[in-house]
Amino acid sequence: MQRILATSLPAQVGEKVTIAGWVHRRRLLKSVAFLIVRDASGLAQVVVTDPAVRATVEALTEESVVEVRASVTANEAAPAGVELVDPEITLLSAAEPPPFDLYRPALTASLPTLLDHAAVSLRHPLRQAAFRISAAAVHGFRATLDTAGFVEVHTPKIVASATESGANVFAIDYFGRPAYLAQSPQFYKQTLVGVFERVYEVGPVFRAEPHDTVRHLAQYTSLDVELGFIRDHRDVMAVLRDTVAGMLTAVAERAASSVRALELTLPTVPETIPSVHFADAVAMVGAAIGEDLSAEPDLAPAHERWLGEWALREHGSDFLFVTGYPMAKRPFYTHPDPRRPEYSNGFDLLFRGLELVTGGQRLHRYEDYLAALAATGESPEPYESYLDTFRRGMPPHGGFAIGLERFVMRLLEVANVREVTLFPRDLGRLTP
Amino acid sequence: MQRILATSLPAQVGEKVTIAGWVHRRRLLKSVAFLIVRDASGLAQVVVTDPAVRATVEALTEESVVEVRASVTANEAAPAGVELVDPEITLLSAAEPPPFDLYRPALTASLPTLLDHAAVSLRHPLRQAAFRISAAAVHGFRATLDTAGFVEVHTPKIVASATESGANVFAIDYFGRPAYLAQSPQFYKQTLVGVFERVYEVGPVFRAEPHDTVRHLAQYTSLDVELGFIRDHRDVMAVLRDTVAGMLTAVAERAASSVRALELTLPTVPETIPSVHFADAVAMVGAAIGEDLSAEPDLAPAHERWLGEWALREHGSDFLFVTGYPMAKRPFYTHPDPRRPEYSNGFDLLFRGLELVTGGQRLHRYEDYLAALAATGESPEPYESYLDTFRRGMPPHGGFAIGLERFVMRLLEVANVREVTLFPRDLGRLTP
Repeated sequence: MQRILATSLPAQVGEKVTIAGWVHRRRLLKSVAFLIVRDASGLAQVVVTDPAVRATVEALTEESVVEVRASVTANEAAPAGVELVDPEITLLSAAEPPPFDLYRPALTASLPTLLDHAAVSLRHPLRQAAFRISAAAVHGFRATLDTAGFVEVHTPKIVASATESGANVFAIDYFGRPAYLAQSPQFYKQTLVGVFERVYEVGPVFRAEPHDTVRHLAQYTSLDVELGFIRDHRDVMAVLRDTVAGMLTAVAERAASSVRALELTLPTVPETIPSVHFADAVAMVGAAIGEDLSAEPDLAPAHERWLGEWALREHGSDFLFVTGYPMAKRPFYTHPDPRRPEYSNGFDLLFRGLELVTGGQRLHRYEDYLAALAATGESPEPYESYLDTFRRGMPPHGGFAIGLERFVMRLLEVANVREVTLFPRDLGRLTP
Repeated sequence: MQRILATSLPAQVGEKVTIAGWVHRRRLLKSVAFLIVRDASGLAQVVVTDPAVRATVEALTEESVVEVRASVTANEAAPAGVELVDPEITLLSAAEPPPFDLYRPALTASLPTLLDHAAVSLRHPLRQAAFRISAAAVHGFRATLDTAGFVEVHTPKIVASATESGANVFAIDYFGRPAYLAQSPQFYKQTLVGVFERVYEVGPVFRAEPHDTVRHLAQYTSLDVELGFIRDHRDVMAVLRDTVAGMLTAVAERAASSVRALELTLPTVPETIPSVHFADAVAMVGAAIGEDLSAEPDLAPAHERWLGEWALREHGSDFLFVTGYPMAKRPFYTHPDPRRPEYSNGFDLLFRGLELVTGGQRLHRYEDYLAALAATGESPEPYESYLDTFRRGMPPHGGFAIGLERFVMRLLEVANVREVTLFPRDLGRLTP
């Protein structure tokens, strides 16, 4: 008989059905036993009165996998108003007792314990909810860009030289030659603007991050976008605005029950996200806190928080663009502001006072790349294959990258990015 | 003024418009010059009669990036029936002359040369078409599985031990500890069946393939699927059938002009793909070629080709399932056929006589894993973290993996998988 999901039960009152799932909880009262079965859709309550069946339930361990054939009856006191009676229970797979109780409203074990036992802890409804939201966000990312004529690409994760600098790269033995894990698809997505004009990639990036922090991972999922024939960085910001809006719409529509379970209030993205130039931002924060920040090349986290509060107060927006970061703090491929060349055509998108996305316009002429590398004192030689792209005719272009786990971390306001990463990789963690 | 794409020109006859793109070709006749501009959508013909503008065009190199402001006029002899007249031409970015002619109907340079100059060769309309088809196929993969309740996941690509065996893995220095690049998400997707029941992943996998062949890559894109609460491998085959059908529908719908450009005839997927058991397949092929193959543990490529012809002749199908491959040739996590335990609940999907997808039912009980590893003589120790999953309660489950590049290679009937890989990685190739 075809198995149905727990959420389908209310439509089946009076019918004999088969469900299957995990033993979420057992409640063994004197006259009756309750078996709560969890499947991908939710929970179902099974009422057990027959002594033989009760003996089976008593012998079950939590997290064992069972199939239950029973009749659906209405009961206002049961979850979703229905329960299953007169069950036949078949054990599909026995489990050892789990290391912590999954049936409690929240998991109380420490994060390291939860991560060590990811195969079990990820089953908790609230942990599942985070990843359903994550998947919905990625769906919205793709749907928005597909509609806007972007082509999805897959680029090499094993590269001959580091993307941004020599630091924080994982070395790999590539058939006896040295190679590295890609820190980002930056060079490839730019090259592919020369092919498809508009590209995106969803894929892993690798950082040999030597610090143990709550927001760094050795591998994370990067949502990368690059587009050509732009006027300047403002065209990139417009695409980013639509992308973030599309991600949040997809979360609201495709992960509604997960949003409810986590009691989230999703932000709305203004039609035009307010924007402030770095120089003005620094002046504004400096005046407010009574410090001279005019020589600062970057914004400190406290300054970003102040700006987040300012954007909410003045513009009613959870989001704020800061544009024109000083060239000195941006990577060599960043395009300067033609009118104020010490500032860049680069931007950050702040969400509730935290940096969410970095992006900007890139250089597109070969001679500009040579000059930019010369200015940093770097040799162009490791970048030879990348630089060749700019000898082949490249349009004005730019892009951005969203770190998926950090995006979800901030949306869910969790303290540690590992809480929203299925199987995190960091300085100390290589399994599971 | 807003730039429009070449394909929009027929709707703009009589209007003054701006296009932008690459100098695809110049034809300098005595009285008139033609500039063919290529953008993401296709080609546009610009007619140049003014001597000053002609001088600009004469100085341009192919693949330079230009913006053209001009009037659209109808001309039946021009591409798509329109051309641009009275142009103003602005050079956005100059290119060195490309190493081969992109305007010819087909690229004639050798494959290594094309790959060395990927930044240019990928711009050829026929090469672009292959990747637009690839992107459409991935879109169809996801759309089919999203509709069927699958959750998209992202799993670690750096792992503590090899997935299938110790051979062909890339070693990596992980903060001073040995680690490996994941050969597949097999272990993680199984673990996540215990969480979400149905999962898929689109991501890179890595094989340190020591042979230089036309169908092996050191990195390829794996489309991985795993689902729980199955009856047996036949439920997996049904999902695979729908997935391949969805991929081909998406190619037809979303990459129609690329399909036309490559003159492809897309196969149709039967509602039920014909299926033959390995033992029967071997008997049938043996009888046909007059050899006793009954002791063979696997099908040779020539046998698969024979079966492909048989499926077309007898069932009118480009696709054929071969089920029940001998356990001896399948990985240790393969579920045996309960009635004939020397055969597996594993299958291959053949497409026109070539293996396209491998899949099957997996073991789901901890003790079965221990017994399977003991039978191979392998120690369970390197698999400890994976095996822990099966002590936690796992439903009957199975899945499959589609190698994206090989799928497209076979659909396009190209000789070398590198032709359908943006930036291939192999024994000799680490750039671009």
